[in-house]
Order: sequence, then C-alpha cells, then structure tokens
Amino acid sequence: MREVAILGIGQVPVGEHWNKRLVELAGDAVFKALEDAELKRVEALYVGNMMAGQLDKQSHLGALISDWVGFRGIEAMTVEAACASGALALRTAMVAVGSGLVSSALAVGVEKMTDTSPRETTAALATAASADWESIHGVTFVGLNALIMRRYMYEYGWKHEDFAQFSINAHANGAKNPNARFQSPITKEIYKKAAMIADPINLMDASPMGDGAAAAIVVPADLIKGQKGKPVIRIAGSAVATDSLAVHDRHDPLWLAAAEKSANEAYRQADITPNDIDFFEIHDAFSIMAALSLEACGFAERGQGPRLALDGEIGPEGKVPLATMGGLKARGHPVGATGMYQIVETVLQLRGEAGPAQIDDVSIGMAQNIGGSGATIITHILKAE
Amino acid sequence: MREVAILGIGQVPVGEHWNKRLVELAGDAVFKALEDAELKRVEALYVGNMMAGQLDKQSHLGALISDWVGFRGIEAMTVEAACASGALALRTAMVAVGSGLVSSALAVGVEKMTDTSPRETTAALATAASADWESIHGVTFVGLNALIMRRYMYEYGWKHEDFAQFSINAHANGAKNPNARFQSPITKEIYKKAAMIADPINLMDASPMGDGAAAAIVVPADLIKGQKGKPVIRIAGSAVATDSLAVHDRHDPLWLAAAEKSANEAYRQADITPNDIDFFEIHDAFSIMAALSLEACGFAERGQGPRLALDGEIGPEGKVPLATMGGLKARGHPVGATGMYQIVETVLQLRGEAGPAQIDDVSIGMAQNIGGSGATIITHILKAE
Repeated sequence: MREVAILGIGQVPVGEHWNKRLVELAGDAVFKALEDAELKRVEALYVGNMMAGQLDKQSHLGALISDWVGFRGIEAMTVEAACASGALALRTAMVAVGSGLVSSALAVGVEKMTDTSPRETTAALATAASADWESIHGVTFVGLNALIMRRYMYEYGWKHEDFAQFSINAHANGAKNPNARFQSPITKEIYKKAAMIADPINLMDASPMGDGAAAAIVVPADLIKGQKGKPVIRIAGSAVATDSLAVHDRHDPLWLAAAEKSANEAYRQADITPNDIDFFEIHDAFSIMAALSLEACGFAERGQGPRLALDGEIGPEGKVPLATMGGLKARGHPVGATGMYQIVETVLQLRGEAGPAQIDDVSIGMAQNIGGSGATIITHILKAE
Repeated sequence: MREVAILGIGQVPVGEHWNKRLVELAGDAVFKALEDAELKRVEALYVGNMMAGQLDKQSHLGALISDWVGFRGIEAMTVEAACASGALALRTAMVAVGSGLVSSALAVGVEKMTDTSPRETTAALATAASADWESIHGVTFVGLNALIMRRYMYEYGWKHEDFAQFSINAHANGAKNPNARFQSPITKEIYKKAAMIADPINLMDASPMGDGAAAAIVVPADLIKGQKGKPVIRIAGSAVATDSLAVHDRHDPLWLAAAEKSANEAYRQADITPNDIDFFEIHDAFSIMAALSLEACGFAERGQGPRLALDGEIGPEGKVPLATMGGLKARGHPVGATGMYQIVETVLQLRGEAGPAQIDDVSIGMAQNIGGSGATIITHILKAE
C-alpha cells in the first residue's frame, strides 16, 4: 500500500443539536474538512455510524450524506463496529486510498443521540454488547463497566477516588476546546460528590452522550509532500483487533487484549515504541477504560493505570498527555463520531492548531477507539512530517 | 491493486430459521466457505448486514461473528448500504486483499427477518429509504416500487402482465436450487391472479423476506493459479455508485443512474461489454427493478426491459439468463445477505457446480446488488480463468 496522509479536517461542536438533522451535522463537518483541504471533490465517502437505523430511522447514510454534500454518484458506505465505528471510517478511507482504488476519500463519523429519549438511546447503545449474554439481562454499558471497575478495584486495591485524575484532566483540557460539550474544569470535590450511576461509576467517571460529526480527508502522502505550506500528517500506523463481545468470555476481564494487539501492530507499522508517543487520544468512555487502555498499550504495568494519573503524568506537561482536548469525558461521546473526533484532535495537535489546548513539541500522536467493552479496538498513529 | 479471486463459498438455505440465531446462520455459511476453500483461518472478516441493530438488538457483528467462528482477535467490521450491504462485504474484502493489507479475507452477508413481526421488519426495511422525504409519509418499499412501476407502465405503455416472465423465470430457476426459499414453478395464471400488495405490484412481483447467510473467501489470484484442481474465479470488475435516496429527487425516476455508472465501471475494469456477460444475477427485488436494471446496464433500450423477458431471452437458454438460481424473487431476499447469495450463485455457475440450475458454457458472470430504490448499486463481474 502507498503512504497515506490527512489533508483536511472538520468538526462540529458536540452538543444537543435539536435544530439539525443527522445529515446536516455530517455535512457541516464535511464542508469544513473540504474547506480546510482546499478540495472541491473526493472520490469516495465512508461513514462511521452506529445507531442511525435505530434512533433516526435512517440507514443507508453513505449515499445520503454523499448526495447532501454535493457528491451524488460517488462510492459510499457505512462502516460499523459499535462505538469504534468512527475510527473504522478513517481506516476504510486509508485502505481505499492506500490501495490505489481512489485518490481521495472522505471519512466522516456522525451520531445523533439526543433527539430520542435517554431510555431509547441507552437501549440502542446496549446493542454494542452481547445481546445473548449481556443486554438480555438488562445490563447497560455503564453497568458492564461498573462490574469491570469494581473487580479492578478489588484485584489491585484501588479506591474510587484514585481514578479522579482521569476526569479532572479531561475536564481541564475540555475547558480549552470550543468544540467540547463541557467546557468547565472540575475539582476533586466535585468528582467525589458526583451522583452515583452504577456503583462504583459516578457521573464524573462516565462520558456524556451528544450529537456530533467529525471528518477527515485522506489522500496519498506524495500528493501533499510536494505542496508548499501543506502540513503532512501521515497515517503511520493503523490496526483493528477484536475480542469476544461478552466480557465474561474473555481470558481476563481486566485486560483489553484487542487494545494490546492493535496498539502493538500500529507501533510495528510506525516503527516506534510507546515511549515515542507524544500524546494519546484515549477512549475514556469510563475512567476504568482509560486505566485498562493505558496498561494494554504499554504505558503502565498491569493494574497500575491509575498510578500514572496520580503521578501527574497524564496532563499536558506529563509523560503521556491524555485526552488533550477533553476526551470522551469532556468533549463528549457521540458514539459513531467519537473515533473521528479523536483523529481531528490529533491532527490539530500535530499541526500546532489546538489553540489553548496545544501541547508543546509534538510530532507523534496516537488515537484509540474502543467498541463495546473492548470487543473492537482500533489504534491509529499519526506523524507530522 | 493485485488481482483477487474467490477461493471458497458457503451458504445456508433461505428460510424461516426460528431455531438459529443470527450468529449461527452467519457461522454456518462461514464454516461451509472455509471447508470449500480448505482453509483453517483468514486474516479479516467483513460482514454485510442492514438490520441486526434494529431487529436483533445486536450491532457489532464483526467481532461477534469472528469470535463465534473461532477467529477471535482478527480485524472485523460491518459494512452497510441498506439492501446492497451484502455485495459491500465482498467489495471490502476485495480491497483489503487487493491492497496487500491481508492475504485472506472472509465476506459474509447475513440477515434475520422472520423473528420479528412483519410490521417491525417492514419498518426496519423502510430505513433504507429517505426518512425525511419518503418513509415519514408511511410509504413502504413496496409502495415506492409501485409508484415507480405505475409511472413506467404509463410512460412506456406496458401492461402489468408484460412483467410476468421475470417472476416465472425466477421461480422456474428457483425450483432447481435447494437453497431457494421457494422451489415451485409458477404459471402466468398464478402471476395474474396473485394478491395485490401495492397496485400495480402483486405478490408475484415482490421478493419474499427470509433469514439467510452466504459467504465467500477472497485471496490473491496468484495464490490459486499455482494450485492444481482449484478453479480460479477472479473478481474482474467491482464498482460502487450512489444516487439520491429519495426517488423524487432524481433527474429521471425511471433510470437507475447508479446501476449504469457502476456497471460501466465494472465493464471497463473487466475490459468487456454487456454482450460478453454469460448470465446476470440481477437484483429482482421487484419485477420493475429487474426491468430498470436491464436497461441501465445496457442489455435493453430505455423502456424496453420487459421486451427481453417477453422474447424469452432471460431464461437459461436465452441471450441474458437472469436469476439463474431463483433470484431475489424465488431464492428469497434476506436483505443484507442477498448480495453475497448473488456472488455465491455466480461462483457456482462459473465452476459448473450449479446442479440442475447449471447453464452451459459460462465463463463470465455479473452480479448486481441494489440498495434502497437504487441509491447504492454495486456491480461485480466474475471470470472463470
């Protein structure tokens, strides 16, 4: 495959967009990406989305969005792996361009979650888990993560408040991101006193729903290398790995095997180690997921994820800056769009365009998108060259 | 991209599989494909499915099916473009193998439609149409096709019975296919007296729902060419094109622009003309769709699709044998699986393994999968070499 780079990015603020339809949100992100890339047209469009069939009564988003943005006729499709659908859109665009099939492709992640009742949205989200072994019992995603977190605390001796820093860091970073759903910092006091959702997960451990869309345009890296003033943000690593949907069926419910596998493959492709990563757009849907992801990706020893946070190493100045623009926790988690928000934010950092959220001296960023409770995990490594 | 071929195929009979879950149906097709290919493992798995999130309360099929068939860990995802999802699975597998990303990939289409009430299933199907312009008014897919058929009859002067041969041919062919949902021939009398569903579409114009799964294994063509006794069924052409979801928004509601575009691109890739096609697995979801597809793909003049059928040219001995194993009309239309059934049947014909349904002297077959009322159309051309 030829080398591939990201030429343009676009996003809409995560929020409750009751005045916009799903196709308009996606379109707004696409138009911004086209403007950013100074392109009028692409040859293919890949949509990351999980729940439009259920919540918007609209499948078939590929053709719909292509037509809406003025590209009627081009190749288009939706890709889905629950909450990891966003990163799949980038992955599919990368393979299409890398293979030589097309010379430009748009990846757009979009989800609309606030037009339906929280009960309906929660039920739709539960389709990411095993229908036969998990959701049939009525357990929600928060419930599943609560079981994992409780077991983790028991196994490794952590207290609930030891996870506080993941949330505090995300909100502090989100406060610097005009596209974040929540833009206020929180304190440890707020974390500790937050309402319990599913013990031990409280409101400050859980990422919020939201409507959103984010997009990126992928082209052959050679195309940009010749162009003056165009930053070359190369996709240096990209890997998908899977695991059982049902958590009970894993060899170790406290180990994200698919994160380990996809991260190691992405490191291999990029020819780097975790030490080379300048910042990590982590899938902090719940604080326990942040801890598990850090461990599986080689940033912390098994059971020691919270230690990094407690030691102050996950902030903008730390060893592994996490969720630099708010993460799922503060930017928000519009499920099928999240993976693309992570990519857009990684590109902003690598270009030095992250505004008040900018981290110094970054050239390699990693983004990891997790589907379900770890059954599909996609790792991307981007390099500014 | 390197050349790609189909090494193995598998399918389950289309029917009402109330004793099998969706993952079991998919697994059964996958196991048969693996046995047929004499392979123990593949590196990636792509699932074509439209409605599992809505009807089975189960998204995230890529990881689920990979795990079920014993491939926990491999790259996997779902691809969707409504009723064209099946062919997208093959297309995605082809690009993955063609690009060099993986050296073997499984494409499986699966749908379970009969565990829910017809009302629920019909509502889920309607998400393939435009939610904003079509389904919001309560129009079903049959309704949309009825509007198109009525207009077509008015424009070109055809009577309802002029379409009979599409249905008669499909059922005659389906009678020779042990995997078809309906295996009895019908007469013109039966066609004419069938119950009306949405005037002018009666029961014999419409394809039946069903549960089903079909799979194919894709590998580099070079891999097979060296192996004795292994037929080389090469994917010589593959193209996706799109159109507006809403029929009213097209320049001509009686012209499948996406069929024309994707067929022409597939012809170009395969370096052939429609005259070189030995048989055509057509997307005869409704008899009007068969007529429109024949015209857009260059087999008939505009408005003259039914003429080919009336002249006896669509039967196994005709100029363009259609739906050689029953088509959607008799084999059944388990939506997200249909595109893969078309591929499996094309391979069976090209291998000379179609049993009583076998057509003589075939070396080039075409399969076309249509999503919605023509908004996504995927054309594949397979060559026996």
